[in-house]
Amino acid sequence: MVVSAPLGGTATKNNLSLNYLLPASDGELATLSFLQDVMDILLQYLVTNFDRSTKVIDFHYPNELLQEYNWDLADQPQTLEEILSNCRIALKYAIKTGHPRYFNQLSTGLDMVGLAADWLTSTANTNMFTYEIAPVFVLLEYVTLRKMREIIGWPGGAGDGIFSPGGAISNMYAMLIARFKMFPEVKEKGMAAIPRLVAFTSEHSHFSVKKGAAALGIGTDSVILIRCDDRGKMIPSDLERRIVEAKQKGFVPFLVSATAGTTVYGAFDPLIAIADICKKYKIWMHVDGAWGGGLLMSRKHKWKLNGVERANSVTWNPHKMMGVPLQCSALLVREEGLMQSCNQMHASYLFQQDKHYDLSYDTGDKALQCGRHVDVFKLWLMWRAKGTVGFEAHIDKCLELAEYLYNKIKNREGFELVIEGKPQHTNVCFWYVPPSLRNMEDNEERMNRLSKVAPVIKARMMEYGTTMVSYQPLGDKVNFFRMVISNPAAAHQDIDFLIEEIERLGQDL
Amino acid sequence: MVVSAPLGGTATKNNLSLNYLLPASDGELATLSFLQDVMDILLQYLVTNFDRSTKVIDFHYPNELLQEYNWDLADQPQTLEEILSNCRIALKYAIKTGHPRYFNQLSTGLDMVGLAADWLTSTANTNMFTYEIAPVFVLLEYVTLRKMREIIGWPGGAGDGIFSPGGAISNMYAMLIARFKMFPEVKEKGMAAIPRLVAFTSEHSHFSVKKGAAALGIGTDSVILIRCDDRGKMIPSDLERRIVEAKQKGFVPFLVSATAGTTVYGAFDPLIAIADICKKYKIWMHVDGAWGGGLLMSRKHKWKLNGVERANSVTWNPHKMMGVPLQCSALLVREEGLMQSCNQMHASYLFQQDKHYDLSYDTGDKALQCGRHVDVFKLWLMWRAKGTVGFEAHIDKCLELAEYLYNKIKNREGFELVIEGKPQHTNVCFWYVPPSLRNMEDNEERMNRLSKVAPVIKARMMEYGTTMVSYQPLGDKVNFFRMVISNPAAAHQDIDFLIEEIERLGQDL
Repeated sequence: MVVSAPLGGTATKNNLSLNYLLPASDGELATLSFLQDVMDILLQYLVTNFDRSTKVIDFHYPNELLQEYNWDLADQPQTLEEILSNCRIALKYAIKTGHPRYFNQLSTGLDMVGLAADWLTSTANTNMFTYEIAPVFVLLEYVTLRKMREIIGWPGGAGDGIFSPGGAISNMYAMLIARFKMFPEVKEKGMAAIPRLVAFTSEHSHFSVKKGAAALGIGTDSVILIRCDDRGKMIPSDLERRIVEAKQKGFVPFLVSATAGTTVYGAFDPLIAIADICKKYKIWMHVDGAWGGGLLMSRKHKWKLNGVERANSVTWNPHKMMGVPLQCSALLVREEGLMQSCNQMHASYLFQQDKHYDLSYDTGDKALQCGRHVDVFKLWLMWRAKGTVGFEAHIDKCLELAEYLYNKIKNREGFELVIEGKPQHTNVCFWYVPPSLRNMEDNEERMNRLSKVAPVIKARMMEYGTTMVSYQPLGDKVNFFRMVISNPAAAHQDIDFLIEEIERLGQDL
Repeated sequence: MVVSAPLGGTATKNNLSLNYLLPASDGELATLSFLQDVMDILLQYLVTNFDRSTKVIDFHYPNELLQEYNWDLADQPQTLEEILSNCRIALKYAIKTGHPRYFNQLSTGLDMVGLAADWLTSTANTNMFTYEIAPVFVLLEYVTLRKMREIIGWPGGAGDGIFSPGGAISNMYAMLIARFKMFPEVKEKGMAAIPRLVAFTSEHSHFSVKKGAAALGIGTDSVILIRCDDRGKMIPSDLERRIVEAKQKGFVPFLVSATAGTTVYGAFDPLIAIADICKKYKIWMHVDGAWGGGLLMSRKHKWKLNGVERANSVTWNPHKMMGVPLQCSALLVREEGLMQSCNQMHASYLFQQDKHYDLSYDTGDKALQCGRHVDVFKLWLMWRAKGTVGFEAHIDKCLELAEYLYNKIKNREGFELVIEGKPQHTNVCFWYVPPSLRNMEDNEERMNRLSKVAPVIKARMMEYGTTMVSYQPLGDKVNFFRMVISNPAAAHQDIDFLIEEIERLGQDL
């Protein structure tokens, strides 16, 4: 649809305001023209997003950016022309998260069908609590969660689940439901009425397990961190030892949160051994597959999650490894109905029991939220466009790129791997050791100097805007780069570029 | 930008797949063409969205809708042409939440600038946890929350806050922070280490207060419901009596959640009297202004929230009365730094302390979430486009429409108001009494029959698709309609239509 600007009379775009747009009567042409202008800005941005000759980021320090433009909110309206300027400015300083050289987070890339689906979601502007107001999206959530449960390996895709606002909340749900399953009276009576609970997760697990325990009134001290092997995998014998120890102290183990794809190393906990222990001690087994869950889509790599089908609940974020736009996180639960009993409050203004349709589709009362954003449509539409085989190809390619990186740096001068062996996920952790440190003895001074290398290189990367990759310390290991690849735009040349860019930016340190 | 279809060679749209789109090399023209096609579908939908001659909903029962179309997820990809079909179908069965006669929820309407901003947000596809990856959005959150705090009345807009995934989570944050403020050891030690807490809220408050208490390990029994007057406002003397009673039992009152705009009646609790009591007993005062907070934008109506400036925390959902697209909910906190201490877990892979910019802009560690969707941009851009005066005009108009409805039905045959007096918010609660019940004695049989009227009328509304309004019972009052007006498209004619439609659909009952 090509819309010619309908700005007849004395109105020009410079003085047109929001009041000329729909739902104003006769607002149709002005609306189409305005939205087409917005769309043109977005399309131009998209094209540069993928262009390797553009910067990943046009970095400004916060105080600079605050002064670069007047961001204030005023009493009086701006014109639509000014609104379009605001859009251009916002994108000028945005990070190009779809750029082939953006590797900074677990969520990278930008899928065109996912984007289209998100635009449609915004346009439909509804809420997930009832079938009444989101009939299509409620059904698609049902269809999609069932498919994900099938892939996990629960017979017939049976079970329960929800799309939640991110992996941390999905993990919190798991903890909440596990506690309720063991002590349903906690809902009414609170933690005061039940024994002291303890949860177990590996020392490399995501911080959201502790965050959830703090919020739920369990306390972070009751999250027992299990030791990991050199590759970052939970050691089952240590888990069992700590469970026995906790029971001896009179505590009640209620949850083991195993990780499928740790944040830094990309390690997969040994799920089968953990499932055996959970079965033996009757403990809820949760698998945090926020990052690694995507590998279930790959026939080549899904063995890394063997045993996931024995979990009671699984977190799986399609907005990470599957490239779905943010936010899209699923919690899957094996037992049906538990989420509903745990969270329902029977609000009669929303969940009327005398409605004329099948009430099992009013899923809102199993959520912690009341209103809930529609996160399913982008995943569903991408799945239709790619097929399961398309997700598989994407994942296989990202893992192949990680192996390519690993092979390139494992014997390269100036690079030191943090963990030995081929990457299991796309995480490749390494130090860049500048020439000045290469012949130093491995002592405290060297560690101290090495710890400052990654932050400086990262700062320079951002100032040049050429690429972005994360770094962090872990345990006794000083700051190292954590490369992760989930970006569908990334290719071998971008891996080559990253290595050379690190050398270029770090050689004088 | 007008894009002519670039489908040269043997590729036609019927066999083009996602693989032809960006980031594919040479994917630019195919991408622009595909996204323009999507945009055309969305623009066509938008125009009918506001057209009174179209249905609000093309209603199908869940089992019908499941059979109407093949929604399944398959191994093999669909073509882009099929993807466009999926989009058309999804919108065909969607609710037109922007339709002038859609009154079903507290969030209605569709603002064109808000929509444009949401499209841009999707296109930028980033995450709120650090300045590093969301520089503009992090700054805009800072600017916007400060402005909201100024409007609440906190000097200089000082304080803290966050955009959260909905009012229920915002209220849960308030409860979490209030608990932490009183007993910071709860974070590590859990509820076992602290006395039994109790919270207070009115019997008409939102169910999320109880939901939060259940999740946080406080327990729903520890949420004491305070009586309301006939208009649905909390009775302060009852609040004080119950606080004293709880203290006598050895419980520790830690939170009063007052409501500014209850869900059903739209009542405003007397905040000044409640603030006095909270001060006297040293209890955290939270104001749940999810629904009523918008009235702060109106010079004519903001007096209804007098005393809100004495609150310790405030929930305020711009996605309700201010017409911002879903989701956009803010929690504002008077004391700075408390959210951070309460929720931070110092994840070193995200919140590196040796970054090169001012770390106070890395706000992610004060959130319950790890990844967090960008909800601020649509509010910020709408504010720029409307100015504060534009929000004020919208709110004043909606309240005027509610008063118009009230005046029309207060003496109209067949209509009975649930509460007396002019509406304080846009909620107007009423029964429609069909002719067959009008001369009946006010006994149990009449109540029983009356309770079935609203559900039948509502079911018919949905089947005809002409309008949508909510109903529910409350306390000893059987099912009644709850009309709410937040829709900027609604006009007097739509109120007239609603009344006549209820009469048309209910006269034979």
